[in-house]
Amino acid sequence: MFLSVILTILLIFCTSFSLSAQEKPLLSKETQICLSCHRIYTPGIVQDWQKSRHSQILPEEALKKPALEQRISTKDISPNLSKVVVGCYECHALNPEKHKDNFAHMGYKINVVVSPNDCQICHPTEVNQYSGSKKAYALGNLKKNALYSTLVETIIGLKEIKADKIVSAQATEFTKQETCFACHGTEIEVLGKKEIETTVGKIEVPNLSNWPNQGVGRKNPDGSLGSCAACHPRHSFSIEIARKPYTCAQCHLEPDVPAWNVYKESKHGNIYFSKYEEWNLKEVPWKLGQDFQAPTCATCHNSLVVKPDGKILTERTHDFAARLWVRLFGLVYSHPQPKQGDTSIIKNKDGLPLPTTFAGELAAEYLISEEEQINRQTKMKTFCNGCHSSVWISGHFAKMDNTTKETDKMTISATKLLAKVWELNLADKTNPFDEAIEQKWVKQWLFYCNSIRYASAMTGAPDYAAFKLGWWELTNNLQEMNDWFNLRTKQK
Amino acid sequence: MFLSVILTILLIFCTSFSLSAQEKPLLSKETQICLSCHRIYTPGIVQDWQKSRHSQILPEEALKKPALEQRISTKDISPNLSKVVVGCYECHALNPEKHKDNFAHMGYKINVVVSPNDCQICHPTEVNQYSGSKKAYALGNLKKNALYSTLVETIIGLKEIKADKIVSAQATEFTKQETCFACHGTEIEVLGKKEIETTVGKIEVPNLSNWPNQGVGRKNPDGSLGSCAACHPRHSFSIEIARKPYTCAQCHLEPDVPAWNVYKESKHGNIYFSKYEEWNLKEVPWKLGQDFQAPTCATCHNSLVVKPDGKILTERTHDFAARLWVRLFGLVYSHPQPKQGDTSIIKNKDGLPLPTTFAGELAAEYLISEEEQINRQTKMKTFCNGCHSSVWISGHFAKMDNTTKETDKMTISATKLLAKVWELNLADKTNPFDEAIEQKWVKQWLFYCNSIRYASAMTGAPDYAAFKLGWWELTNNLQEMNDWFNLRTKQK
Amino acid sequence: MFLSVILTILLIFCTSFSLSAQEKPLLSKETQICLSCHRIYTPGIVQDWQKSRHSQILPEEALKKPALEQRISTKDISPNLSKVVVGCYECHALNPEKHKDNFAHMGYKINVVVSPNDCQICHPTEVNQYSGSKKAYALGNLKKNALYSTLVETIIGLKEIKADKIVSAQATEFTKQETCFACHGTEIEVLGKKEIETTVGKIEVPNLSNWPNQGVGRKNPDGSLGSCAACHPRHSFSIEIARKPYTCAQCHLEPDVPAWNVYKESKHGNIYFSKYEEWNLKEVPWKLGQDFQAPTCATCHNSLVVKPDGKILTERTHDFAARLWVRLFGLVYSHPQPKQGDTSIIKNKDGLPLPTTFAGELAAEYLISEEEQINRQTKMKTFCNGCHSSVWISGHFAKMDNTTKETDKMTISATKLLAKVWELNLADKTNPFDEAIEQKWVKQWLFYCNSIRYASAMTGAPDYAAFKLGWWELTNNLQEMNDWFNLRTKQK
Repeated sequence: MFLSVILTILLIFCTSFSLSAQEKPLLSKETQICLSCHRIYTPGIVQDWQKSRHSQILPEEALKKPALEQRISTKDISPNLSKVVVGCYECHALNPEKHKDNFAHMGYKINVVVSPNDCQICHPTEVNQYSGSKKAYALGNLKKNALYSTLVETIIGLKEIKADKIVSAQATEFTKQETCFACHGTEIEVLGKKEIETTVGKIEVPNLSNWPNQGVGRKNPDGSLGSCAACHPRHSFSIEIARKPYTCAQCHLEPDVPAWNVYKESKHGNIYFSKYEEWNLKEVPWKLGQDFQAPTCATCHNSLVVKPDGKILTERTHDFAARLWVRLFGLVYSHPQPKQGDTSIIKNKDGLPLPTTFAGELAAEYLISEEEQINRQTKMKTFCNGCHSSVWISGHFAKMDNTTKETDKMTISATKLLAKVWELNLADKTNPFDEAIEQKWVKQWLFYCNSIRYASAMTGAPDYAAFKLGWWELTNNLQEMNDWFNLRTKQK
Repeated sequence: MFLSVILTILLIFCTSFSLSAQEKPLLSKETQICLSCHRIYTPGIVQDWQKSRHSQILPEEALKKPALEQRISTKDISPNLSKVVVGCYECHALNPEKHKDNFAHMGYKINVVVSPNDCQICHPTEVNQYSGSKKAYALGNLKKNALYSTLVETIIGLKEIKADKIVSAQATEFTKQETCFACHGTEIEVLGKKEIETTVGKIEVPNLSNWPNQGVGRKNPDGSLGSCAACHPRHSFSIEIARKPYTCAQCHLEPDVPAWNVYKESKHGNIYFSKYEEWNLKEVPWKLGQDFQAPTCATCHNSLVVKPDGKILTERTHDFAARLWVRLFGLVYSHPQPKQGDTSIIKNKDGLPLPTTFAGELAAEYLISEEEQINRQTKMKTFCNGCHSSVWISGHFAKMDNTTKETDKMTISATKLLAKVWELNLADKTNPFDEAIEQKWVKQWLFYCNSIRYASAMTGAPDYAAFKLGWWELTNNLQEMNDWFNLRTKQK
Repeated sequence: MFLSVILTILLIFCTSFSLSAQEKPLLSKETQICLSCHRIYTPGIVQDWQKSRHSQILPEEALKKPALEQRISTKDISPNLSKVVVGCYECHALNPEKHKDNFAHMGYKINVVVSPNDCQICHPTEVNQYSGSKKAYALGNLKKNALYSTLVETIIGLKEIKADKIVSAQATEFTKQETCFACHGTEIEVLGKKEIETTVGKIEVPNLSNWPNQGVGRKNPDGSLGSCAACHPRHSFSIEIARKPYTCAQCHLEPDVPAWNVYKESKHGNIYFSKYEEWNLKEVPWKLGQDFQAPTCATCHNSLVVKPDGKILTERTHDFAARLWVRLFGLVYSHPQPKQGDTSIIKNKDGLPLPTTFAGELAAEYLISEEEQINRQTKMKTFCNGCHSSVWISGHFAKMDNTTKETDKMTISATKLLAKVWELNLADKTNPFDEAIEQKWVKQWLFYCNSIRYASAMTGAPDYAAFKLGWWELTNNLQEMNDWFNLRTKQK
């Protein structure tokens, strides 16, 4: 009897070994040719890809998986793509007619930049959701908004002092790429061809403007918006990396968007950092409690999560506002989420491209309805309910509602003061961001109110909300603004 | 001979497998009923608990372990609790007569809030130690201290500007819960019953004020103080999480208590982050060098640590001041640790509820004696000695002594200036925290001196002590205070 | 056939087990004696060493390894050292004649401080490279530079306010040790002997000044410079720890050298933190893509990295400027790397010990030539090319070049203002660091320009470069400087 147990065990071992030996992923001929050189010249990305799912599974096999386990959302893939693994050529040669960055490379027509429009061959639902989101429009939302563009120029323009005044030059493209537009995305344009020196001699390549860039709203040479690599870094395109909080932390961090900083100090963060090594951050679908014991950013905001019994708790979405009702950050006041990703179309009652007036009135026609707010909040609460009781959840959201209101009121106090400053010509309203009192005003809403609201939303980081970038700063900065005002008005 | 080896190996395997198959933890009937619903409706916490020791070991087995391996400190557990694992009902139904938050739920009498008084059935030594500590009194120590309450109100009260003056409303309970009292703990009161909507329809539950909260000094509906979940998050109640530094980091971080920030930059932190994955952070007793190679917060401050030969190096304690002689943070000057956890009883010679006067004189009768200071310091040094030579240790503590003295002197320089400011009516002493010059003074001791002292105590983070929140800020801020003073007095 | 498979498998198992049982590392008699006590009295470091390679491999075996796998660089080790593992005595008894800290201890002549000169017995190439680097000279570069010494004294001197002026005492040795010189290194001098109390009674030991310290430029009692333990902490001396970014983070962090902070927010950092657990950070040689998928600090700056095919991509170096052409941080303007590690010899055209004048002119004779700059940049680009295309790389470096230029121009704007301030006697130039306007000027280059340049160099952390310690602060602080100036000049 023991012997039969031995034999069974060994049979399992040997079978699994021999299977893995047989399992040679099928590479297209073109990809094999790519690899024959790039394995030598850029081996890092080749290895990266070899460790990825793309190199290990045939699309036709992926299509056969049970619905909830699928990581692709198409129902149909053309035979030339479905019977080979997703290699270099499978991505870098798609839709050549659309790609202004397509170029002749070693006998093939290759695109430099792989875009969401290419990824959607296998992942159409994700690309579709993403394409309507604020992330996809992040470049235009900054660039086409006159007020935000003024803020960008004010901050990153090169400055000189002439006749006791600060004079700012227009911000350079390079510095834009390294600051605001590194996250928001740049516009990649093809400026012709150029010859470059490589390890294998001179080659001619497209001359791309604003490249490299992996911002969420990047405008690609094929006209599409976005860069999947913002969250799924090339060339592993890992779901695990996207689920881990370090990914969101590239852009969502203090002082203006302190999601990452607050998460780190929260109870959820505490549990994540203490235990994540024992969790399964790759599994699809993702099982609550079983695969993980505390949420990351992705868990609450866009992952498909099922209960241990397999029932869906929340659906996957690549529209990152799908479970968000209120917009906490970035602007003068909190406000309901915009109806659509392109926020550059918004105009408030004062004619400014903002979702509220400086006095706080909503530009309601551009913002989601109360019904839709409740709808989205319910989605989030449903997820919370996977671990927390209804009493707990209602207590949490009541606090958060109060916090958005209180922080907005604190901004109103500061804005009223600034209105008086402008009225008395103590500062010039033309550019509302470039004088000391205005910079203090920006800090009130862009840094401190945002931070307090994030701390509230993630039910954690109390010290952050109190001292770090929260009430302490909010209070002291208002004091300084008022002292500044009193000093000027008493002097006059 | 080989065959016998095979048989032996397989026997071990099979036995362990079959044992683990047999090993069905015994659940009480009540807990089985809890689980039958909560497995469906809040599966996250059920899974969390299932991964915990509570679900895996019978208290009667725990009692049989060798003394140093025990994670419970009681010597005796009633039969109804000792022969079932620690499930939902075993914790949430204890001492119903004391729990004002007890309510009828699906035919059972359930407490919403599990308190230290409940945990002490198995963990009496820990609860007893904790109950005398400053942590247990953290709510009252803030709330009952008139001066601290003023600071709280000054920071988090909602502000408006009226007639060029900042007017502050009383801080709301919600904002208190999200800032100071999120860490210090709230007072949970039962305000009657309320009906709530849940996945399974309407149910009646206790209407709790200031809930949810997991602050260290939470006042529970049974009258007890503290929340074990502050450090051992529900429902895994893990010793590993409590030992990892992310736990302490929820509250002890920059700018006012930068223990976490300093640890991260210290040599101990460097080694921890580089190697902790190879360590055993669950083991009891915890073996120096073998289970871990560098300390976390818990290691130095409250863990039971043994040498590899099994001899005790330091005892477990849940009084977090047991190895602390000097109190480095939070107050105007460093001072010997208070004699007892309730610091609201302290009065200095000026009649203020502080352990020192503004001039620095100790309220000695409330503080531990020199003998006790040496006693506690010796405990800490004994632990250091597990890795460091006596020469090394004496060098370290000499530096630290000097640093507390120097930073206190820097505070005296600032306080003397403020005294002159008050004397000349350049600011109003009534509230010592609400004017610009006073806010600068607070930063001197609450942020900068604290940071420098933490950096010293953890023998690391030199850049932190120099530039980040240390001497650079301490020096520049004093400069600004003095410039402020000179500007005002020259104007007069 | 199955049985033979079983037998083979078991044979492999048993052999490996019995081998590991046989493999008793050979300890010298002296080390055995050291261990007999220290195993009891300082077990932590003994365990630490036991987990290290030093305790597990004989130098004579290490010498036999293939060249690229060698972790030692000597070609020859004396028999008394090569046939025993590297134990306590093997390191702590070397070169006693040079060690002023040598003392009689339990019948042996022991050095307290092990120095690079001792380590070089096995690691001569590394020590040699290090000894010429700026790191080795970090103590003198700070101490012998009159201007830097003034900055140190200005920041950490104990201050009092006398007659409305801030008066600073000379910085104490203790505070120096805990701030600047904790990283830069202290000078360890032997001040005689002292008796100390230990667990085993009183013993006589060398009385060392400025001890403990592990700064990179520590001056040791044998006259050598440096502390290998700065990056390879005692007593594991791990290559893995040195390769992990937490090590560099001990000293290279915000606000003045935010390498660590920028790395954390970069794409490289994102990938590292998300995936490093699956990587091999111990392997020598280190294989790109295979052992790791994104670089740490060490990867780019000093590791030996090979391609998966075994060909060298970059050489190991312990001169940390070997792949650096421009010096981004620490000084008023960016400038080419200094020719040699000892920068205290540099004199600019104004006679100041700085690589540029305050107006920005280079002290070119002390700085590397353009040819050498290109040479070093090429080394770095070669490494980048392991993963990134030539187009990507040239785009990156073009941005970085622009950023160093723009930030230098921003500093020029601030410096010109300060020059006017000095000219008009609004501040005293004698100490250029001790008045409010000067402190603001220091922040421009030491904090903000440095941060922007680091963000650029690591092609990440855009929010850092924009808001955290970047353009936002650079712009607002210049505004404040100018407001300060205008306020003073209008008053006059």
